[in-house]
Amino acid sequence: MNNIRDKAHRYVYTPAFQNFIITLIIINAILIGVETYGDLYARYTEWFLLADQIILWIFAIEIGMKLVAAQPTKSFFSDGWNVFDFIIVAAGFVFVGSAFVTVLRILRVLRVFRTISVIPSLRKLVNALLLTLPSLGTILLLLFIVFYIFSVIGTILFKDINAEYFGTLQDTALTLFQMITLESWASGVMRPILVEAPWGWVYFVTFILIGTFVVLNLFVGVIVNNFEKVDELENGGANEDLLKNEVSELRREIQELKDIIKENQHSNK
Amino acid sequence: MNNIRDKAHRYVYTPAFQNFIITLIIINAILIGVETYGDLYARYTEWFLLADQIILWIFAIEIGMKLVAAQPTKSFFSDGWNVFDFIIVAAGFVFVGSAFVTVLRILRVLRVFRTISVIPSLRKLVNALLLTLPSLGTILLLLFIVFYIFSVIGTILFKDINAEYFGTLQDTALTLFQMITLESWASGVMRPILVEAPWGWVYFVTFILIGTFVVLNLFVGVIVNNFEKVDELENGGANEDLLKNEVSELRREIQELKDIIKENQHSNK
Amino acid sequence: MNNIRDKAHRYVYTPAFQNFIITLIIINAILIGVETYGDLYARYTEWFLLADQIILWIFAIEIGMKLVAAQPTKSFFSDGWNVFDFIIVAAGFVFVGSAFVTVLRILRVLRVFRTISVIPSLRKLVNALLLTLPSLGTILLLLFIVFYIFSVIGTILFKDINAEYFGTLQDTALTLFQMITLESWASGVMRPILVEAPWGWVYFVTFILIGTFVVLNLFVGVIVNNFEKVDELENGGANEDLLKNEVSELRREIQELKDIIKENQHSNK
Amino acid sequence: MNNIRDKAHRYVYTPAFQNFIITLIIINAILIGVETYGDLYARYTEWFLLADQIILWIFAIEIGMKLVAAQPTKSFFSDGWNVFDFIIVAAGFVFVGSAFVTVLRILRVLRVFRTISVIPSLRKLVNALLLTLPSLGTILLLLFIVFYIFSVIGTILFKDINAEYFGTLQDTALTLFQMITLESWASGVMRPILVEAPWGWVYFVTFILIGTFVVLNLFVGVIVNNFEKVDELENGGANEDLLKNEVSELRREIQELKDIIKENQHSNK
Repeated sequence: MNNIRDKAHRYVYTPAFQNFIITLIIINAILIGVETYGDLYARYTEWFLLADQIILWIFAIEIGMKLVAAQPTKSFFSDGWNVFDFIIVAAGFVFVGSAFVTVLRILRVLRVFRTISVIPSLRKLVNALLLTLPSLGTILLLLFIVFYIFSVIGTILFKDINAEYFGTLQDTALTLFQMITLESWASGVMRPILVEAPWGWVYFVTFILIGTFVVLNLFVGVIVNNFEKVDELENGGANEDLLKNEVSELRREIQELKDIIKENQHSNK
Repeated sequence: MNNIRDKAHRYVYTPAFQNFIITLIIINAILIGVETYGDLYARYTEWFLLADQIILWIFAIEIGMKLVAAQPTKSFFSDGWNVFDFIIVAAGFVFVGSAFVTVLRILRVLRVFRTISVIPSLRKLVNALLLTLPSLGTILLLLFIVFYIFSVIGTILFKDINAEYFGTLQDTALTLFQMITLESWASGVMRPILVEAPWGWVYFVTFILIGTFVVLNLFVGVIVNNFEKVDELENGGANEDLLKNEVSELRREIQELKDIIKENQHSNK
Repeated sequence: MNNIRDKAHRYVYTPAFQNFIITLIIINAILIGVETYGDLYARYTEWFLLADQIILWIFAIEIGMKLVAAQPTKSFFSDGWNVFDFIIVAAGFVFVGSAFVTVLRILRVLRVFRTISVIPSLRKLVNALLLTLPSLGTILLLLFIVFYIFSVIGTILFKDINAEYFGTLQDTALTLFQMITLESWASGVMRPILVEAPWGWVYFVTFILIGTFVVLNLFVGVIVNNFEKVDELENGGANEDLLKNEVSELRREIQELKDIIKENQHSNK
Repeated sequence: MNNIRDKAHRYVYTPAFQNFIITLIIINAILIGVETYGDLYARYTEWFLLADQIILWIFAIEIGMKLVAAQPTKSFFSDGWNVFDFIIVAAGFVFVGSAFVTVLRILRVLRVFRTISVIPSLRKLVNALLLTLPSLGTILLLLFIVFYIFSVIGTILFKDINAEYFGTLQDTALTLFQMITLESWASGVMRPILVEAPWGWVYFVTFILIGTFVVLNLFVGVIVNNFEKVDELENGGANEDLLKNEVSELRREIQELKDIIKENQHSNK
């Protein structure tokens, strides 16, 4: 059993095998791109399906080998990327032959995301980006509260004036999301409402001011996080600590020097 | 009297009570969200009103207890958040049964903002965000002057060309606010005017250039403020001061050493 | 003569006089704001004109006194803000009674900018903002070159397709300015052209990519400038230099110490 | 042969010659600008063509001289800007008299880009801007993957609903590019589709959230890069290293001092 595990481990993590998988992902990506051109797909449907099946099976074998290679089999699932790989491939088998053709096709597209889990530099980058999210928790909560309150108020005030934008709570939330990106917030959303509710601008201007201020601080949070990471990774703090150590070392030596001289003095007398 | 105060204080600041209030705020938030769906509200109106009354009374009792718990009762109002809580709840009683149904409903929505005053991390965050505002005072004043001058000029120039956007001073101010968010400033506002006033672009381009430059510096102000706060909170300045102290300490010791040696020399002669 | 100068100087720079001028500027600002409401202005035209004349004359006297108070009279014009004040007030007399009513009215609005020259904190802020411009010279030149080249190419390519946006060199430049603010660049400018020139997207996407990249770096330049200023003003660089001085001082003293000990050694032998 | 090289080198890099070339580039720029005004061009066509030919020949001679002046002739092409100059001028001869009048005219416009290669400060700036690109490689790759996946999904889902925006893979990619600039993403792209595909908002909101988050981090990358460059160029890192060197030097001297004193002690006994 251990023998098989070692063999699997030795084989699955060789650069050659990794490159082979990356190549497959790229071929898969090109295939699903080409499929969007209906004519081509219609003529060679069986070939596309065959290629897709082969790639899916090779992915399944790869992940199976990685599962076998993991020391306690459970440890395989401790890395989020492995779980992601597993689900994306397993789902390909679960939904096969199902009626949800569109779901199946989108699933195959999502397999392109495997590029991230397979290329180490991309994996590291995405990990770093995702790590900035938890530290933004409080400000995201604040943003959610602001969104919720303005959604309820917007629905109450403008429900009957513009049902498409403010008909239900979820409609208003979507409209507010559009407004926070500043897209047509005035010309498309506010101006038509002003005709019937002249005081409506208070709601819109308040939301834009509060919303963009919070989002700006969210962005600043991302920037500050990034700078701190860069600072930690490179020299910064470490460098200064080194300097401090040097200076205390210096002080210790001078203390020693003083002791020697004092002793000298005594022995002279 | 002191006895009651202590008891109130002990009770109102327990985590259990705090969590109870947070739960109530969330229930209140969900209720006002559900109410926006007219059908549901119409069928269970009396239940909604009852729940609302109960929650309002519990909030009133909570704030009453906090008022009692405060050492000199006045000190309760020295914290802006307490004043906010007090007004938001008191207004619920003042406007009850009033004809302004919409005002009342919006007031109840604003009660969701109590989440901020009750959850400490949110409270700290909002305090920090609000604290950046005073340091932006001068640049906000500058922005106001720029807005005022361009509002007057815009009204003078384009009043008769486009009454909706430039009819009165307040219309123009709103249009300028829209323009500073860059929303449809050209396609929606400038282009139609250019047809009748070909030299109008001078006004619009000047405003966009000056306005975005000032707003950019406003944003930069927020960012700089944030960085300084981070710097202060963490190591930065303090660290460097420590280093300087170490070095001067070192110098003092060497001075001492010199004195000892000189003395040594004298006694030797 | 010197007597008058001293007297003027003593009088014109008192806080009371300054506040009086600021009050006048604010009254002037309110008046021109009220004037935009045609009905009100029509009814009290003579009063508005009178107030305007009085304010203009007081401003003229103020600037005259400042001119007298300046040590060599020329030195008055060495400060850009004084020149600005002089022109804005002098123009009020030059254009009086002229046919260009609109020019005259806009001139009076520009007098509100005197708030900046009179309030010291605003003056300092605007000076600081203007000082960031020279350091952005090279990148502004680059932006100009990019604009010019894309203006010429855009006019050549799309002149006959859309004369309103690309008819002449200046039309295209204005369109590019609109595009760099990302306002309707796709829906309003590119999409209609794509119908007739399917390869037009190359021009638009290239411009958006290059343009926003250059503008982003322009913004970064402003931010970097700001940070450096903050750094210089507060501790930063200075602090580090101080530390370096301390350390070299230390080194000098140790050198001295070594000399003393060596001498000591010699005299002992 | 060496003689000619030296002469060419001495002549071509004099400030006078450089300024002459810059003047020519500016004249060329003005000419192509004036040409866009059809009437003027039609009347003086032969003069414009003559001036263009003369300028092209002078540029050719200039680049020929630079080629001769380069120590091994190959070294001329090791600088990207020289290659750029060479191609831009050579293309002017290759396409002359060709049927592609528009290509030829655009080529002549691109010659204005020579301003960058000729003015040193602009050259340095553009080099610096281009140098930030490689460090952004990974995040640009991530952006490409996100674009590709959303392009395929968008084409699958909305192909039949809106053929102009989502008809083919390249159409969708262009639409996504428009959306990432937040231009009409809701009013122009999403809203019309929501009418037929009410769940379509999931696709759009997801793309906006992921897309802007990645682009924001791309921007932050540019900013961080800039700050590091500024830090390196000015004091920063170097300064701190200097300080560290000073301190270790100090330590070495104290060690020496200790040795002297110890020796002193021995000889005394």
